[in-house]
Amino acid sequence: MDHAQARIWLATAVAEARAGLAEGGIPIGAALYGADGTLLGRGHNRRVQDGDPSLHAETAAFRAAGRRRTYRGTTMVTTLSPCWYCSGLVRQFAISRVVVGEAETFHGGHDWLAEHGVEVVLMDDPECVALMRDFIEKNPDLWNEDIGD
Amino acid sequence: MDHAQARIWLATAVAEARAGLAEGGIPIGAALYGADGTLLGRGHNRRVQDGDPSLHAETAAFRAAGRRRTYRGTTMVTTLSPCWYCSGLVRQFAISRVVVGEAETFHGGHDWLAEHGVEVVLMDDPECVALMRDFIEKNPDLWNEDIGD
Repeated sequence: MDHAQARIWLATAVAEARAGLAEGGIPIGAALYGADGTLLGRGHNRRVQDGDPSLHAETAAFRAAGRRRTYRGTTMVTTLSPCWYCSGLVRQFAISRVVVGEAETFHGGHDWLAEHGVEVVLMDDPECVALMRDFIEKNPDLWNEDIGD
Repeated sequence: MDHAQARIWLATAVAEARAGLAEGGIPIGAALYGADGTLLGRGHNRRVQDGDPSLHAETAAFRAAGRRRTYRGTTMVTTLSPCWYCSGLVRQFAISRVVVGEAETFHGGHDWLAEHGVEVVLMDDPECVALMRDFIEKNPDLWNEDIGD
């Protein structure tokens, strides 16, 4: 896909990550876009805010998009490489593409998704890296809890 | 693990599946048990009831168990072979064991979990098979929606 477009979409996910951080949460954001570029759902990690370990950024965006018959042509945009839980979501629902803000602070399942036919666009975005690096440094226990480490 | 114990735990997941069916939902249930045998959380698929595609049985049970520092020694019991989304959950959070009611009506990611060190106990339970077979026959569209097919 066009990187300029990916960058615009990534800004939605970054805004979600920043909203999560402002709430005292883990700063990971995501957005699900339709094949025609419509924003279907957006969300951020809610472990701290809701005491809910099941709401990672990607699952929050997926949930916000509601029930859908198909995910063909959709793009999951996330500030951070998706963990196995969120990679499994993408594979099971045959989401066509994943835009990953960065995979430097955490390397999840995006290579596995690419092997299984998902288009993966890795942005190496310095703002996403800085957000997570700073957060992990200050909150190592919370971060490890969020990825079951 | 002891199959008699697995059968007792599976009954909790089946009760959840039946509760979901009675609510007009997809009859898949799950329960997360601690290393000491404590029931940590239980739940069932809530796509229909809550209009929430993110709540599969396993993610509902995981959510109900709340925030936890570790899943070491825990067992996810589910009436049906876990899809990629739920298999990813098990792998990411290093849940030690999965008890699968049946994998005849749907074959998810339990082999992949076994390859990655998760203990998988396949029960081939006729009641679980009958529940899903009957449901899929009557509601093929809803079932396909739930697994993104």
